Amino acid sequence: MQFSIQQNKLVDAVNDVMKAVSSRTTIPILTGIKISATHDGVTLTGSDSDISIESFIPAEEEGNQHVDIQKTGSIVLQAKFFSEIVKKLPKETVDIEVQDNFSTKIVSGSAEFNLIGLDPEEYPQLPQISDHHAFQMPIDLLKQMTRQTVFAVSTSETRPVLTGVNWRIEDRELICVATDSHRLAMRKAPIESGEISNITSVVIPGKSLNELNKILEDTNDLIDIVITDNQILFKTKYLLFFSRLLEGNYPDTSRLIPTDYKTEVIITAKDFLQAIDRASLLAKEGRNNVVKLTTFDNNSVQISTTLPEVGKVEEDVNCESLIGEELKISFSAKYMMDALKALDSTDIKISFTGAMRPFLIRPLDNDSILQLILPVRTY
Amino acid sequence: MQFSIQQNKLVDAVNDVMKAVSSRTTIPILTGIKISATHDGVTLTGSDSDISIESFIPAEEEGNQHVDIQKTGSIVLQAKFFSEIVKKLPKETVDIEVQDNFSTKIVSGSAEFNLIGLDPEEYPQLPQISDHHAFQMPIDLLKQMTRQTVFAVSTSETRPVLTGVNWRIEDRELICVATDSHRLAMRKAPIESGEISNITSVVIPGKSLNELNKILEDTNDLIDIVITDNQILFKTKYLLFFSRLLEGNYPDTSRLIPTDYKTEVIITAKDFLQAIDRASLLAKEGRNNVVKLTTFDNNSVQISTTLPEVGKVEEDVNCESLIGEELKISFSAKYMMDALKALDSTDIKISFTGAMRPFLIRPLDNDSILQLILPVRTY
Repeated sequence: MQFSIQQNKLVDAVNDVMKAVSSRTTIPILTGIKISATHDGVTLTGSDSDISIESFIPAEEEGNQHVDIQKTGSIVLQAKFFSEIVKKLPKETVDIEVQDNFSTKIVSGSAEFNLIGLDPEEYPQLPQISDHHAFQMPIDLLKQMTRQTVFAVSTSETRPVLTGVNWRIEDRELICVATDSHRLAMRKAPIESGEISNITSVVIPGKSLNELNKILEDTNDLIDIVITDNQILFKTKYLLFFSRLLEGNYPDTSRLIPTDYKTEVIITAKDFLQAIDRASLLAKEGRNNVVKLTTFDNNSVQISTTLPEVGKVEEDVNCESLIGEELKISFSAKYMMDALKALDSTDIKISFTGAMRPFLIRPLDNDSILQLILPVRTY
Repeated sequence: MQFSIQQNKLVDAVNDVMKAVSSRTTIPILTGIKISATHDGVTLTGSDSDISIESFIPAEEEGNQHVDIQKTGSIVLQAKFFSEIVKKLPKETVDIEVQDNFSTKIVSGSAEFNLIGLDPEEYPQLPQISDHHAFQMPIDLLKQMTRQTVFAVSTSETRPVLTGVNWRIEDRELICVATDSHRLAMRKAPIESGEISNITSVVIPGKSLNELNKILEDTNDLIDIVITDNQILFKTKYLLFFSRLLEGNYPDTSRLIPTDYKTEVIITAKDFLQAIDRASLLAKEGRNNVVKLTTFDNNSVQISTTLPEVGKVEEDVNCESLIGEELKISFSAKYMMDALKALDSTDIKISFTGAMRPFLIRPLDNDSILQLILPVRTY
């Protein structure tokens, strides 16, 4: 294998595939990045066996030559060193050549590195997924749906299936749900193009979705999504992102969501978020970061918390509307702030059905997203 | 005590004094910030007993009212909470009022905090230092001299005096020296104004100088410096910064500095630094981050390193001048990069007196600064 490549293209592709490389893998060859050169261009691959990422740099694109292939072939180089080296090379062009015994020469300007490579034949094959049943979504919509749900997955391995986001497809609508059993985030959107396979409910590891969001740029270009029994593939022009799926049945969360309410508050999200954030300055030092909300007759709610031996905070926030029963309720400030940030909405509606029951937070005029939080017993 | 104050002025002063507050202090009241209001303005104090910082907010300055004092007095509030609270207050004005039992109300907009304060009488007195013997320096020069030396102090407590920077005053010249016994940094500058006390050699803790550099803004305003037996005071218009001095005799470092050389290299600092940085990508994973320098007849030096089982790197860097004996020498890449960054110079001169002897790095035309590094035995 021998080629010359533009440094910035190489750096971008290395940064993408590095998202899948873990230094803690038990499979030694997966600490490496696989580099393959064909006459069409160069493909980099990184994998931790849960996530695998393939990034392609075309030899030529729109009349610009990115790679000059002198000899096709492939090699695996230690990711930790290769990724740092390519970033710090002095010139715009990098020459990479595999010599005897997988020894690989990397030359840029007067700097010459020789890295001991590994046999590319030992690198695992990526899953073979046919894209017959691909559906498409705009990349920015996919990223937004992930951002609005993935924060709510469980961080505990007690119930592994809750560490993922449940994707269900019903009537050409994608419904994303995440819950750690103390709160729940749901977002849905119609699928506008493509063919949906007969697998209509999967659980995607939260970590995979977080890494995918870091790699994808905010554009409204379409991304192909293919779901199989145990894998999901996200595919753009030059990128393949594979994730394994979580096994096990995702709980039915629909019955958790209350349909009636006893108290309903409409409030400016920003004012409410800032008041919670200030109360959290004391609450986060105490047990579970819990704040109290009390409704008042004068169309306002009070956010308060007391931290023994330190002090207390009280703040009244005006509501746009406050109807129904009087209420005192306690909840996690962190969960509320996460939910408010995910909603991306100016005005929000909070629907309570009593101090001991889960409550709903929604945008004022948008049914495609909801956040649910379980209160904390303090009264 | 009761006053209204501009939030941004309060935040700036809190940020300054927080540099001295440690959460790990054994003296409980020092986890607090002392706040004192007089008719002239508000003074904040933070201290970890090694460093004490006092920041003053004048009631009025150039016709702008920063503070409206309703009642003079003082209080100590827990630094961790008070500092976070003032940053997140909703309005530009903050009302602070001490009530019964040191309970302190902090109000801004609709947010009301009540913090349990501590008795200000228990807060230690700051050192009383007369400024009779103050000398002056431009603040930016002081910051530069610190930056160019303090990185070389020892991080080990084996010889505590080496964790500080030695300041000597000779013939109205300030000489700053730091060494961890593997390298040494020296910078000197004339003292242009003020009166120097009869104490002409002190050792200032590196940590104190680092914190001072964070607080001081880059200006050529003068700063007053007063040295006593066991304290140094830095004084600007609204800031007092006290540091205790380290006890013990600082070693005589002048005899370490070679006066002749056998090989001398003049080289562009940036090219040399980048080559060392690249070699360090492999070297830092090995023993002590050691790189090798080899002189070549063709007016160049080669930087190289080998990391067993990973690979090697070699890079030739052209010299502007290379005279004297052939040389192979090994040294810490980190020490060399620290030294090159401290020099702030386009072209540098490196003077070697053999592979086992300390060598000097200096700017081409400037005797006020030098860096010395001890080589590592590898050949």
